[in-house]
Amino acid sequence: MALDDQTRVVCLAGGVGGAKLALGLSHILDPDHLTLVVNTADDFEHLGLYISPDVDTVMYTLAGLSNPKTGWGLAGETWNSLEAINRLGGDTWFRLGDHDLATHILRTDLLRQGKSFSAICHLLSTKLGVKHTIIPMSDDPVRTIVHTDEGPLPFQEYFVHRRCEPRVRDFEFLGITSAQPHPQLLGSLSQCDVLIYAPSNPYVSLAPILNLKGVQEMIATRRSSGMRVVAVSPIVGGAAIKGPAAKMMIELGFESSVTALAEHYVGSLDGLVIDQVDATSAARIESLGMRVWVTDTIMKSEDDKIRLAQEVIGFAKKFTG
Amino acid sequence: MALDDQTRVVCLAGGVGGAKLALGLSHILDPDHLTLVVNTADDFEHLGLYISPDVDTVMYTLAGLSNPKTGWGLAGETWNSLEAINRLGGDTWFRLGDHDLATHILRTDLLRQGKSFSAICHLLSTKLGVKHTIIPMSDDPVRTIVHTDEGPLPFQEYFVHRRCEPRVRDFEFLGITSAQPHPQLLGSLSQCDVLIYAPSNPYVSLAPILNLKGVQEMIATRRSSGMRVVAVSPIVGGAAIKGPAAKMMIELGFESSVTALAEHYVGSLDGLVIDQVDATSAARIESLGMRVWVTDTIMKSEDDKIRLAQEVIGFAKKFTG
Repeated sequence: MALDDQTRVVCLAGGVGGAKLALGLSHILDPDHLTLVVNTADDFEHLGLYISPDVDTVMYTLAGLSNPKTGWGLAGETWNSLEAINRLGGDTWFRLGDHDLATHILRTDLLRQGKSFSAICHLLSTKLGVKHTIIPMSDDPVRTIVHTDEGPLPFQEYFVHRRCEPRVRDFEFLGITSAQPHPQLLGSLSQCDVLIYAPSNPYVSLAPILNLKGVQEMIATRRSSGMRVVAVSPIVGGAAIKGPAAKMMIELGFESSVTALAEHYVGSLDGLVIDQVDATSAARIESLGMRVWVTDTIMKSEDDKIRLAQEVIGFAKKFTG
Repeated sequence: MALDDQTRVVCLAGGVGGAKLALGLSHILDPDHLTLVVNTADDFEHLGLYISPDVDTVMYTLAGLSNPKTGWGLAGETWNSLEAINRLGGDTWFRLGDHDLATHILRTDLLRQGKSFSAICHLLSTKLGVKHTIIPMSDDPVRTIVHTDEGPLPFQEYFVHRRCEPRVRDFEFLGITSAQPHPQLLGSLSQCDVLIYAPSNPYVSLAPILNLKGVQEMIATRRSSGMRVVAVSPIVGGAAIKGPAAKMMIELGFESSVTALAEHYVGSLDGLVIDQVDATSAARIESLGMRVWVTDTIMKSEDDKIRLAQEVIGFAKKFTG
């Protein structure tokens, strides 16, 4: 099938990197041609509030409200509640901004009223003016446990509280075998022309989505019907643009390189988008059985995001049809 | 028993008026000689947060943090979360400030962890530097329903959302018969020399405390052993200093006057402190069988609060011993 402007795209995303590419894609694809599926395995409850960092990052980014300096949180955020929480002796290692708190309070309240997580996600993102569909990977709880040399740590405990310092040995996704993938995840995949892995952490952002039951099977079925799977590397010049991906690769016994990333995905990718600083790795990666697109993958401006999104779609078009 | 500096005082309080007198009392009595018992029947859950308006008003006031203009809430409060809640379509009729939210979030979280309401009250007020004991009247839920010409309304719905507009017919305290009075309420009463009713609403602030099981009996027992009960009138010049007390009196078929207030309390008070503007009512009130102390009862400055507290204690001393 020839891809054209009607390309139907599903993008799997984690937090900051995923949100950036998602924003670019949202500028070139209509809401009915783009489905953003977001990791929820790093969700957690903190001070009794249900917090979904990746979903919020994607939602705030698409709403044009995200903090351009950090990539997470809201622009113009204030920290008065957190200051008062500190005064009252509450935990403050997870930075809750005043505006951001509203999201967590309302989501927690609506969950308690019995609304599904994804319905709440739709409600809140619509209120913020987001037109594209953000789908949490599942309405059921999946929780990443990071097994480290200091023992098992819940993801946010490892990621935020411990600043990724403990050495990683393995990951576990509690609930992954019983969680139902969101119906729209399988539904959108079943009609998908291009599946994109955003430049997100392969271990803790994309693996939970890909390990939900039925997802790999649906992807395999669709690939045999012409769907192409392309990833944008979160590893640039041997380092992660953001987050602990490179550190994790090393601690798990791999190189932190685009080549090692390609080896991680071997067999499951049709193409990999790598940064120009890694151009010399292209031939080696292509020898693993996937095509390579070399470009500037660092998304600073909105224009960067749109250009990269266009290139990723264009890349997928080159080897389909 | 002669009262001296060792007077053991219990003060029953609602919100703003109660908090003001409580602050005055806290300046002249040691923590082990003053027990502040606060109404919890106007507590409610809002956006999934447990909110205890009277307890918080007393706590913030004793901590020196209350907003001097409103009497409730915190000085220097900001409203960024509420603005974001509004943007997300959440209810904003109950004004939740950013700093105040911290109290509700932590309290709700600690309740969910199984801590008792009063233990949390102690924890939070201690963190804010409050040295005197603030006791919620009960750790069990009691909820005021205001029966109005528009039907029954939960208290905060009547008080804040509807701004006390519906006409009052009656009050109901859900849970009052099964709620256990806080052990320290009965304990402090059992050793009390002077029981003070703060200038709080007789129907919705003091009645819930007084109607808890065993409280009237304990008061009667103690009065027969010399404890004196004095009230400070919340009605001044026929109006309530704050809140709907006068409007309620009229809607229930009474005058809104200190005399009608005295009639409401007849038999249960040894003395009533009234404002100088009501001096001409003193003789009529004394004919009802209670003593009267006439003074300036409007507490604007901290000095006003301390002076009134001293006068109330002094008044009680006059007719004991």
